[in-house]
Amino acid sequence: MLHLLADWALLDDGFAPDVLVGVADGAITDVTPRSEGATGERVAGLLLPGMGNLHSHAFQRVFAGLTEHADGGGDFWSWREAMYRAAARMTPELYAPVMAWLGKELLKGGYTSVAEFHYLHHRPDGSPYARRTEMAASLVAGAEAAGIALTLLVGVYEAGGFGGAPLTGGQNRFSNDVDAALLMAASLRVHCGAVVGLALHSLRAVSPASLRRAVDGFAGQGPIHIHVAEQRAEVATCVETLGAPPVAWLLDHAAVNGAWCLVHATHANAKEIADAARTGAVIGLCPSTEADLGDGLFDFPACQEACGAFGIGSDSNVMLDAFAELRLLDYGQRLRGERRNVAAGDNGHSGRALWQQAARGGAAACGRAAGRIATGLAADFVVIEPTAEAFGQKPDFALDAAMFGAVRAPARHVMVGGAWQVRDGVHRNEAKIDSGYRAALKALGA
Amino acid sequence: MLHLLADWALLDDGFAPDVLVGVADGAITDVTPRSEGATGERVAGLLLPGMGNLHSHAFQRVFAGLTEHADGGGDFWSWREAMYRAAARMTPELYAPVMAWLGKELLKGGYTSVAEFHYLHHRPDGSPYARRTEMAASLVAGAEAAGIALTLLVGVYEAGGFGGAPLTGGQNRFSNDVDAALLMAASLRVHCGAVVGLALHSLRAVSPASLRRAVDGFAGQGPIHIHVAEQRAEVATCVETLGAPPVAWLLDHAAVNGAWCLVHATHANAKEIADAARTGAVIGLCPSTEADLGDGLFDFPACQEACGAFGIGSDSNVMLDAFAELRLLDYGQRLRGERRNVAAGDNGHSGRALWQQAARGGAAACGRAAGRIATGLAADFVVIEPTAEAFGQKPDFALDAAMFGAVRAPARHVMVGGAWQVRDGVHRNEAKIDSGYRAALKALGA
Repeated sequence: MLHLLADWALLDDGFAPDVLVGVADGAITDVTPRSEGATGERVAGLLLPGMGNLHSHAFQRVFAGLTEHADGGGDFWSWREAMYRAAARMTPELYAPVMAWLGKELLKGGYTSVAEFHYLHHRPDGSPYARRTEMAASLVAGAEAAGIALTLLVGVYEAGGFGGAPLTGGQNRFSNDVDAALLMAASLRVHCGAVVGLALHSLRAVSPASLRRAVDGFAGQGPIHIHVAEQRAEVATCVETLGAPPVAWLLDHAAVNGAWCLVHATHANAKEIADAARTGAVIGLCPSTEADLGDGLFDFPACQEACGAFGIGSDSNVMLDAFAELRLLDYGQRLRGERRNVAAGDNGHSGRALWQQAARGGAAACGRAAGRIATGLAADFVVIEPTAEAFGQKPDFALDAAMFGAVRAPARHVMVGGAWQVRDGVHRNEAKIDSGYRAALKALGA
Repeated sequence: MLHLLADWALLDDGFAPDVLVGVADGAITDVTPRSEGATGERVAGLLLPGMGNLHSHAFQRVFAGLTEHADGGGDFWSWREAMYRAAARMTPELYAPVMAWLGKELLKGGYTSVAEFHYLHHRPDGSPYARRTEMAASLVAGAEAAGIALTLLVGVYEAGGFGGAPLTGGQNRFSNDVDAALLMAASLRVHCGAVVGLALHSLRAVSPASLRRAVDGFAGQGPIHIHVAEQRAEVATCVETLGAPPVAWLLDHAAVNGAWCLVHATHANAKEIADAARTGAVIGLCPSTEADLGDGLFDFPACQEACGAFGIGSDSNVMLDAFAELRLLDYGQRLRGERRNVAAGDNGHSGRALWQQAARGGAAACGRAAGRIATGLAADFVVIEPTAEAFGQKPDFALDAAMFGAVRAPARHVMVGGAWQVRDGVHRNEAKIDSGYRAALKALGA
């Protein structure tokens, strides 16, 4: 039994002072504001619920920042070729240290859980490993080494494009039909500690019939994620092939509910966004990757107006800081609408609005009982200290300033399931994980 | 006489290996690539020309991140009210430690010079200090303490709006007519080590007649900066009042040349941008502030097509990292155009294209013979080390990755005018400057 005594904690209805938080077996047992003088481990600063990262492709980190040239990097589709080349080189031995390093950096960025959208299943020639879950098991091992809570989303990937186009070269490692994915998910649920979910790659890669079978076969078992409406070309082909844009088609053809995460939804229109919001599905926004790839800007005000759930994902993992990711989300929207503080609403603070909503959406999409500081939920916390400018200000201003004015990564201490993983900005296993990652990169480059 | 021996240095035609750089009296005396084995202070990593920060309002840092709420922070104009409140509290005693801290953090972010757009001249009631340059002298002292090269732009501010509207409350401290500004500039040039320039606040605040007199009186003496076309409301009023949008009007009514910096130009149209490019004027882009304030997105491709000069400014100082600022510039453009690598051109790397162009434009706008690694220019350098992913890759990839995939601020060592100010990410006077800043903030908050 652990007791934390936080100067300030972000509860459902706002910041409260001197909050005593009891923790046992990885979960919050009680939350008592105004407990000044109580006995507990003092937490100087602001205790926030940890952020759930709802969309990651861990292997994409290994080429972060290495496709920023016109030659072969001019658009999303040529970037995808570079991504296929990186995917082709990954091995089960190298995947664990990559995931460990990524998990460590995500923790330092304020994320306490990560949903890994995993489709890198097979040998480079497309044949399964002797153990079909070999690559997935490496991700589990890597996340455990870092101490980040993993949600492993098992990918279904059947076709190279709309209408059942065959898989080509780089896609063979991803090939996974519905039966295989369901079997892998069941097996992983038994054999590992991760939350297990389903990753329907996209309407490009999963046929309508397979989508139906996958959803029927997995209903009630965990989160279901799908990439939708990231690129205009994808939307246009979807309209041509299926008769509707991806989000509208999906809402018409699948029982989308709160277990779903619609990743990107960049080019969904306001009606699709409002319809999606009514289902309880979480919109998975990935601001840094969507900017990096030139995807475009999501109609966030439409989502807010419909009270839609959303969260953030680090996706291609070029940016690993939840505070910076949320700032970029709001900055993109400020530039889109030419106004300030888009997320703040009529009376709110941008920092709190963004953090609370994204933490709830992220936890839901990760299938983890977390995302708020409340009894019964996971003891996943991020502690920030005020910037120099926000020192002595009310805590809402301190959170705003951490997100919109910090000169270094704001997360100071990070706890996952009751255990500190990061103290004073340093991970408990920093050096070992760094050297493992460098060795893996060297091996990948060879 | 100092000799640096850099693993790689970014020269005009690209990265060269084993570059021996001679430095004497603060300037580069010779540059010799392929000097493997020569005697010199080894610089591990990539030696880049230091970045000139072409637009800063130092006092605005003190409320960084503290206006991110709907109440009073909903748009640019209400943000401006908060800015006036912060300006009202500044004193000569507090300005120096604020500038010192800002300068230190800018150095750590890869900037080696800063053009301070200075209009906070007078006592809160608008009366001049006994020494008219009191506030300017504090900025000079602060910049010297940090070791950043300062360009002090003396503000002209006569009116509260187009058509000569009177100054109101918060603007009285800024009030400065042309004669006063020219006298202050002359005096500062004699009495301090900074480069001195002229800051015409805007076409709102400076009448056509005064603009003409200021430009005639200052021609050939240093850089001339002006805020233009940041907000649509400003452009509309300018068209109403002066009969043309601000950039077009300016180009028609002033002998704009390479000494000029047009700050923002956010809503300039393609013709205005092309016309401005032909004059040699530098466009002063401030991506983080323009995003924070919801200004909008500049037509950067029009500027590139016209071979226009540009640089970056930290402006309201919410973001103090040149690499992140340039990433945000390209990200905004990627989102605007829905394509990748906007700055890279047909064959280039985004990192190099952005850094080289912005360093040249920044140096020009700062009126400093710098911005390239070449004989005769100031020995202003930033050293970066490759990210884990870019280790062993060609240096162009390492610069790309520093800008687009780094998980911490890339600048490791920073030299200004031949003297190291930052080593291994730490400023030579970090603790003292930090404590001075905290004390100043406390005094400002009281």
